[in-house]
Amino acid sequence: MAEVMHMIDSEVFLAFSTYATIVILKMMFMAPLTAFYRFSRMAFANPEDTGIGKTPEERKKMLRSDVDVERVRRCHLNDMENIIPFVLVGLLYSLTGPNLASALLYFRVFVGSRFCHTVSYVLPLPQPCRAFSWLAGVVVILTMAYRVLSTALYL
Amino acid sequence: MAEVMHMIDSEVFLAFSTYATIVILKMMFMAPLTAFYRFSRMAFANPEDTGIGKTPEERKKMLRSDVDVERVRRCHLNDMENIIPFVLVGLLYSLTGPNLASALLYFRVFVGSRFCHTVSYVLPLPQPCRAFSWLAGVVVILTMAYRVLSTALYL
Amino acid sequence: MAEVMHMIDSEVFLAFSTYATIVILKMMFMAPLTAFYRFSRMAFANPEDTGIGKTPEERKKMLRSDVDVERVRRCHLNDMENIIPFVLVGLLYSLTGPNLASALLYFRVFVGSRFCHTVSYVLPLPQPCRAFSWLAGVVVILTMAYRVLSTALYL
Repeated sequence: MAEVMHMIDSEVFLAFSTYATIVILKMMFMAPLTAFYRFSRMAFANPEDTGIGKTPEERKKMLRSDVDVERVRRCHLNDMENIIPFVLVGLLYSLTGPNLASALLYFRVFVGSRFCHTVSYVLPLPQPCRAFSWLAGVVVILTMAYRVLSTALYL
Repeated sequence: MAEVMHMIDSEVFLAFSTYATIVILKMMFMAPLTAFYRFSRMAFANPEDTGIGKTPEERKKMLRSDVDVERVRRCHLNDMENIIPFVLVGLLYSLTGPNLASALLYFRVFVGSRFCHTVSYVLPLPQPCRAFSWLAGVVVILTMAYRVLSTALYL
Repeated sequence: MAEVMHMIDSEVFLAFSTYATIVILKMMFMAPLTAFYRFSRMAFANPEDTGIGKTPEERKKMLRSDVDVERVRRCHLNDMENIIPFVLVGLLYSLTGPNLASALLYFRVFVGSRFCHTVSYVLPLPQPCRAFSWLAGVVVILTMAYRVLSTALYL
């Protein structure tokens, strides 16, 4: 195990592990948030989830799609479309031996941008709050991908 | 390549590779299952998929959304929301040099919980089968994330 | 950092990093493509995105789902269902020390299959173009998963 411990001793890799874990936890938080909106709006997708309803008619009425629930679900999907590429590209980027200061800058901007994105999407804030926070995250991923491709290109 | 072979020689990493691959294969199995439901319910999303229909009217009727197809699709999406975080956090967790017995326990509970989740969702079983199997998986990810953050914290 | 640099010196790992990054960038390209279709079809999901509309009635009419937008979104989701498993299984596969020629073959077939899949889905091309390009990608992932499980099996 000596090699593995050695590897995780790299400061860039430690920083990557920390920020990647934080942003994955943020993404996973969207699931209980969806559940919270489903219960507060009484809008469910599956008949077996409507056990709170007393009469069959009441239960049937709870099987509906709600504007706020769909908003949280789109936010969760957008997280997956951006956070997972960040973690995958960021892992490869961390292995290219980048400068610690740049790596920390990228990781912090990305994590910050995704928290802003979620707040902008769920509240919602007026545009272009959501668009700009999404864009900041994408620029970080593109910058890291450029570094991976320019260091490791092997076609 | 000596280092790489050395790394994969760690028993925790071998166990992680095994369970991660199994649970990813389980997730990918949802795609043919969706196709199976689409054909058995004759419910498709794209006009080019309705080639079995003989007349244009018949083909148009096949472009519909079906309750069972949507159920399998939600199950697939829930898999992605949970299994991908497990693999990403689990990879970092495996590199923190954990105890083999705890690592095996976490990996087994997670993989078991996702198989139970799929069965509970697709059949469906009455709640709280699905809720509890989902929760068991989430608790494993949170425990591993705590270990990563407490070992590797570098903000 | 010596170990990490050593690891990324493996040619298989360099090739993996290159192809994984390319296919992740391809997946991320689906987001601006969705935005392009939303603007050209004037079909948005959030009220705050309809700022181009002048009157409140015009804005309300822009909150609709469009056939072409939904097609691009399904293509993006299918990318996530396939490209993320490829990157995760491919990472473990690269660490099993495979033969460079086989690894390059798998990576190239997968990346090519996903570009064909996107073209087949978005244009769309008649079936079975989309089905076959999807299948080629799945076969690559299954082959790599078999290699991981047969090399690293530890239950």
